[in-house]
Amino acid sequence: MRNVRVQLAYDGSRFFGWQRQDGFPSVQEALEEALASLVGERITVHGAGRTDTGVHALRQVASFHVDTELDDNRLWHALNAHLADGAVIRCLETCRDDFHAQFDARGKRYLYRVVIGRFRPPFARELAHWVREPLDVGAMRGAAERMLGKHDFSALANVGSPRKSNVRNLTALRVVARREVLALIARADGFLYNMMRTIAGTLIEVGRGKIAPEEIDAILASRDRTRAGPTAPASGLYLLSVLYDEPCFIGAERATAGLSGTKPVR
Amino acid sequence: MRNVRVQLAYDGSRFFGWQRQDGFPSVQEALEEALASLVGERITVHGAGRTDTGVHALRQVASFHVDTELDDNRLWHALNAHLADGAVIRCLETCRDDFHAQFDARGKRYLYRVVIGRFRPPFARELAHWVREPLDVGAMRGAAERMLGKHDFSALANVGSPRKSNVRNLTALRVVARREVLALIARADGFLYNMMRTIAGTLIEVGRGKIAPEEIDAILASRDRTRAGPTAPASGLYLLSVLYDEPCFIGAERATAGLSGTKPVR
Repeated sequence: MRNVRVQLAYDGSRFFGWQRQDGFPSVQEALEEALASLVGERITVHGAGRTDTGVHALRQVASFHVDTELDDNRLWHALNAHLADGAVIRCLETCRDDFHAQFDARGKRYLYRVVIGRFRPPFARELAHWVREPLDVGAMRGAAERMLGKHDFSALANVGSPRKSNVRNLTALRVVARREVLALIARADGFLYNMMRTIAGTLIEVGRGKIAPEEIDAILASRDRTRAGPTAPASGLYLLSVLYDEPCFIGAERATAGLSGTKPVR
Repeated sequence: MRNVRVQLAYDGSRFFGWQRQDGFPSVQEALEEALASLVGERITVHGAGRTDTGVHALRQVASFHVDTELDDNRLWHALNAHLADGAVIRCLETCRDDFHAQFDARGKRYLYRVVIGRFRPPFARELAHWVREPLDVGAMRGAAERMLGKHDFSALANVGSPRKSNVRNLTALRVVARREVLALIARADGFLYNMMRTIAGTLIEVGRGKIAPEEIDAILASRDRTRAGPTAPASGLYLLSVLYDEPCFIGAERATAGLSGTKPVR
């Protein structure tokens, strides 16, 4: 038995989220099926985080114990050969036996992508959230700055009845505008349920002038979800990377997952 | 009655090509249906060129005569509101009464997109052609240069029994490599059936070392289709633009069609 970790990219529009649920193809199931067809036994895979239906990942991390004679490189290729369309293992490596993709995670980075245009983008509509009207990027940056730091994020997440702490440390939140694409890039020690989508929905309301940047402090302090913006659609959300204290996938071979392959050169 | 021309972008994976054929949703049908629902009568739309099933367009051009009181800007928005998902009119303008999108076309530009990577790209697989192994870009550029100019392109197209001339003037053929994406960009006074896909399939064989750049001259001279490479898949092909002697869409308002919206920022 050895402990293996993988870094995955997947198109969320092709799966019902990360977590295995009978009758609905999930990324976890796809990976476990690929493993089962290789080693002939059911192996449970632990993901760093659960992504919802329609949410994409560029560098999700998962770990599992497996008993195989294949070396890392062969195991990597064999798993990708068996993996369902829409998901790819970008790199694979054997790690210390007690590594756990979820429990060892120290934080995550998320990307939320908005395409701004008068009409629905013809290409790959499941890969971004479409907004009709121009947004005030300056105001959005002002609001983003007020979200930074250690807060109770109950107002910017769908936490239901909070039992444990809803305090998280948002250490980065960038608003990047490139032509008609707006990218919100966040880093935190942890994200509450729908936190990134609520941050995005709230920043979009700020960009529309519906919420003033100055209101963010009061919204956070209120811990009242109803005062923030809507939960933005899953289609725009990408798990960018998972942060660990130890270096991961440094030596491992990497596959370019064809992530630039979706943009027509003009 | 006035004569109107439109510039369209569409995702070819959502249509059975440009040309109307009963029972199979086409871009022409989508545009004619949108027009019919606006003006209440069936209007025939003339496209600059017929794209096959799965072939995309960034700037297809079509023209039609219509009797409406809507000005260009209103007509543009109304048509887009009725147009099927996956297609968008980027701009619209009233033009001289005898303009015809097909007969007045002086040439076209095509893009063929290849994503190179060990594993199938997880995102938007219908928007590019996936090639596993690295390609020799230098050799491909050498072969591309030999294809330039005025030739009988029977060897690089699927023309069947040639009745009229198969001579075309290929005035540009660039091989652009950016990270894992390879773009072939061609301009000619006209393209024979499957000519761009055969040029792409042949250049890919050159990149693989299966065909030497020096062989291109003999392949062209032979006019023998079997000596060239395979017809590359439709998924990689984009109609980039249609060339006319007169300036088109200069004054017209344009819609960014969210074409950059398919590339995740990392």
